[in-house]
Amino acid sequence: MAVYTQVSAEALAGLLSGYDLGDALSFKGIAEGVQNSNYLLETSRGRFILTLYEHLVDHAALPWFLALTTHFADAGLPVPRPVRDRQGEALQTLLGRPAAIIEFVSGVSVSTPTPAQAQAAGAALGRLHGSAPGFGKARENDLGQPHWPAMAARCLEGAAAIDPQLPALIEAGLRATRDWPAGLPTTEVHTDLFPDNVLMLGDTVTGLIDFYFAATDLVAYDYAVTHAAWCFSADGRDHDPALASALAAGHAGTRGLSADEIAALPQLGVGAALRFTLTRTHDWLNTPADALVTRKDPMAFARRLAWYLKATPNMVLGR
Amino acid sequence: MAVYTQVSAEALAGLLSGYDLGDALSFKGIAEGVQNSNYLLETSRGRFILTLYEHLVDHAALPWFLALTTHFADAGLPVPRPVRDRQGEALQTLLGRPAAIIEFVSGVSVSTPTPAQAQAAGAALGRLHGSAPGFGKARENDLGQPHWPAMAARCLEGAAAIDPQLPALIEAGLRATRDWPAGLPTTEVHTDLFPDNVLMLGDTVTGLIDFYFAATDLVAYDYAVTHAAWCFSADGRDHDPALASALAAGHAGTRGLSADEIAALPQLGVGAALRFTLTRTHDWLNTPADALVTRKDPMAFARRLAWYLKATPNMVLGR
Repeated sequence: MAVYTQVSAEALAGLLSGYDLGDALSFKGIAEGVQNSNYLLETSRGRFILTLYEHLVDHAALPWFLALTTHFADAGLPVPRPVRDRQGEALQTLLGRPAAIIEFVSGVSVSTPTPAQAQAAGAALGRLHGSAPGFGKARENDLGQPHWPAMAARCLEGAAAIDPQLPALIEAGLRATRDWPAGLPTTEVHTDLFPDNVLMLGDTVTGLIDFYFAATDLVAYDYAVTHAAWCFSADGRDHDPALASALAAGHAGTRGLSADEIAALPQLGVGAALRFTLTRTHDWLNTPADALVTRKDPMAFARRLAWYLKATPNMVLGR
Repeated sequence: MAVYTQVSAEALAGLLSGYDLGDALSFKGIAEGVQNSNYLLETSRGRFILTLYEHLVDHAALPWFLALTTHFADAGLPVPRPVRDRQGEALQTLLGRPAAIIEFVSGVSVSTPTPAQAQAAGAALGRLHGSAPGFGKARENDLGQPHWPAMAARCLEGAAAIDPQLPALIEAGLRATRDWPAGLPTTEVHTDLFPDNVLMLGDTVTGLIDFYFAATDLVAYDYAVTHAAWCFSADGRDHDPALASALAAGHAGTRGLSADEIAALPQLGVGAALRFTLTRTHDWLNTPADALVTRKDPMAFARRLAWYLKATPNMVLGR
């Protein structure tokens, strides 16, 4: 949550000279995201986000991310559109880093969603799932199920120091996700649709943002990630059936899940919770004390993992 | 340069309920300032900065700062105006911290000013100096000349570890400022008008911001601070007479300095450079490694101090 790279007014003017966006009227570093430097930019043509991609983002996949979000914007989804320069390029280089200018969308992120907001998020997720198949360019999910054993091996040893129960929960998650559902539909999915990646005005979704974990994976796994992100208390101790029911109703109205997908939800939820438990455990053990990032408690997702291990499909759907 | 306090959409809505500003359309933490948490807020009524004052700002003086900037805004200066709530109060409490909503002004801060921009800054400073006397409420400068010996005593011991020449330069600065000019005009002054506290569009000043070091002190001392901030290379090794001449021309067109004030400029410049050398040295020695703040090199101002020790009034004026 910081601006890692300082962009001077002079460097900005150089970048803007390649665009038909006019001159900068305002330019402020914004404290969003943990992986990029972001600036809110206003020109005579409108408002934009300038993002500089730092080393944590997969640079090779940036053209794919920008093409995917352009595809969603073309499909009429509330996904901010990358802006092309006069040569038609969205991807730039600024101060030695990949960079892009993205359209600004209004809206605020809620911290404690209401059922009406969860339903709107579910509906937006379903529209995303319905629009993604037309994209047609796949990308492997680097943080998907085939990678979890190796990710666990890198952090299991230190996990007990975080919480004595953490290693056993990770092991249980690995066992429960070894046989992963085969034959369920896959498409391009967000895989990180936490409330802070959804902009809203009241109960209306105005923006789906931060697609830098997007990949080609199971639709129902993306649903499970969103359920894990929206339907628990922050510490993972309490599941909220009203939020779960609203999320499901929203998704059912736009794409919905098949019987096979619904049957797999508890296992997919274990996987979703395991993925965030593993990355948070790794980050907890490896974030230097002087980092600009606040570490997130791995136990918040290990507790969700324990919940999914005992859950039924109806429980995940808030029934 | 960080957001120290996270304000949720729900906490923001609670704050806005006391104002006639409508609901939030957008709300982003901005990475500005080292002492406060700042958010860029858009509502149906316009754009604003929400500031939460962290412990580094003198909370007791907040009503004075807000009244002073309101005075400048009333005088037609490009100073963002604090917004009053329905009870007429500008100062609020949010998440246990003092807070205020301030009008947003367009503009960007330049890193390497041109002479035309320095002239515009000098003119704006002169207008500030011309408008301040009507305010009529004084505030002691906690970082002014009477405090420098004590400030030096707290950091002289560690200074040699930063640079072997630093202790001798601090001692020379103390000696040169012991007899401080008497009888020069005082008024409410900014005392921190670095380029990043001036918003510009092209060569036009659109905003003078960050008055949290403002105090009642010598007008010509404020001019010297601004000269030190604008007319040297960032590392303090090179003085730029073209920038100095432009700054002086701008100020002369709006308020200007008397012969007595001009005669005192080299000594006042030593003081200005000493003040920033001392606070930067103190911060350098006391900023913990995990702080969210980038330390600033004390030598950048110690080198300016050495320059002022040998300067004539005409050199400070870029003649």
